[in-house]
Amino acid sequence: MGAKGEETRARLVQATRALIEAQGYYGTGLNQVLAASGAPRGSLYFHFPLGKDEMVALALVEAGEDVGALIAGMTGGDLGPAEVVRGLLDIFGDRMAESGYATGCPIATVALETAAGHEDLRLVCAAAYDTWQQALARMLVRHGHDRADAEATAGAVLALVEGALLLARVRHSRTPLDQAARAADILLRATAPAH
Amino acid sequence: MGAKGEETRARLVQATRALIEAQGYYGTGLNQVLAASGAPRGSLYFHFPLGKDEMVALALVEAGEDVGALIAGMTGGDLGPAEVVRGLLDIFGDRMAESGYATGCPIATVALETAAGHEDLRLVCAAAYDTWQQALARMLVRHGHDRADAEATAGAVLALVEGALLLARVRHSRTPLDQAARAADILLRATAPAH
Repeated sequence: MGAKGEETRARLVQATRALIEAQGYYGTGLNQVLAASGAPRGSLYFHFPLGKDEMVALALVEAGEDVGALIAGMTGGDLGPAEVVRGLLDIFGDRMAESGYATGCPIATVALETAAGHEDLRLVCAAAYDTWQQALARMLVRHGHDRADAEATAGAVLALVEGALLLARVRHSRTPLDQAARAADILLRATAPAH
Repeated sequence: MGAKGEETRARLVQATRALIEAQGYYGTGLNQVLAASGAPRGSLYFHFPLGKDEMVALALVEAGEDVGALIAGMTGGDLGPAEVVRGLLDIFGDRMAESGYATGCPIATVALETAAGHEDLRLVCAAAYDTWQQALARMLVRHGHDRADAEATAGAVLALVEGALLLARVRHSRTPLDQAARAADILLRATAPAH
C-alpha cells in the first residue's frame, strides 16, 4: 500500500473512532464515516474488506492503545496514584468539554451496545479495559499495595473513572469527574500500605 | 383507551425497555419492538404518534422510576449506606447474570449514545441519574454526613456503581461489582461522621 493508501486508511479509522465514541456502533453509518473522512467509497472496501465491523474493531484497538499509553505514561513517572487518577480525569475532562461532551471513554458506548449481542466487538472492548486496569494495578503494586489489594482497588478505580465519564457526558458537567477524583483520593489513601 | 389498549401500550414500552438496555437506542429498530412485544404495527403509531423517540423516552422514564423506587426502598430501611450499595449491586448482578449480561443500568447505553447528539433523550437520562443520586445523598445525610460531603460522596458512589455495571457487562463477570462494593464500603467508612 502506498503512502496515500495508508493515509486514507488512517483517516477512515480516525473518523470511525470519533463517531463511535460520540454516538456508538449502531448509530454510526458507513456514509457518515465516508463523509467525515473524505475518503472515497471504494477505499472503504479496499482497506476493510470485512466491512464495518473490521473498521470498528481497529478503531477500538487504536483508541484502547492510546488510552493505555496515556495511563502508562502517567503511572511511569513520579506521581502518586491519586495524582495519576486526578490527572487522567483532568485530561479526559478537558477533551470532553472541548468536544461539547461528544467524547469520554472511547470504548464505553460500544462496550455497552455489544455486551450481549456482538461477541467479537465485546472482546475487543474487554481487552482494552483489561490493559488499562492492569496498568493501574501495576502502579499500585509499585506503591506498595499487595497484589490482591492492587487488583481490587484498580478495578474500583477504573469503575469510578468510567462511571464518572458517563455521568459527566450525560450531565454536560465536570462535577462528576471532580467527585470521582476526590473519592479516588480517599480510597487510595485508605488502601495505601502503612509506612 | 380500553384495557386492551393499555395492555398493548405497556407491552410496547416493556419491549422497548429491554431492547434499549441490551443494545441501545440506535440499535433498536421498531420492527424489533413490534416482534418482541407482539403488538400490531398500527398500535405503535396509535399509542406513540411522535414515533420511536416518544416511546424510548417513556421507556427511560419508567426504567428510571423503577430504579429510583428500588433505591428509595433500600435506603428507607435499617441498612447502613455500604449495605445499601452492596445490596443494589447484588440485585443488579443477579439480574445481569440471569439475562446473559443483556441488562445492567437501564439508562447507561442510551445516555452515552445521546450525550452529544440527541438533547431530548439526554435530558431524560440526566433526570433519572439526578433522582438516583439525590436519593443516595439523602441517605447519607440521614446517616450524619454533612450536605456537601453527602452530595460529593453520593456522586462518587453512583459513578462507582455505573462504572462497575459497565465493566461487569463487557467482561461477563461479577468481579467488577464485588470490587465496587468493597471500594464503596471503604469510601463510606472513610467519609462517615465520627461518632
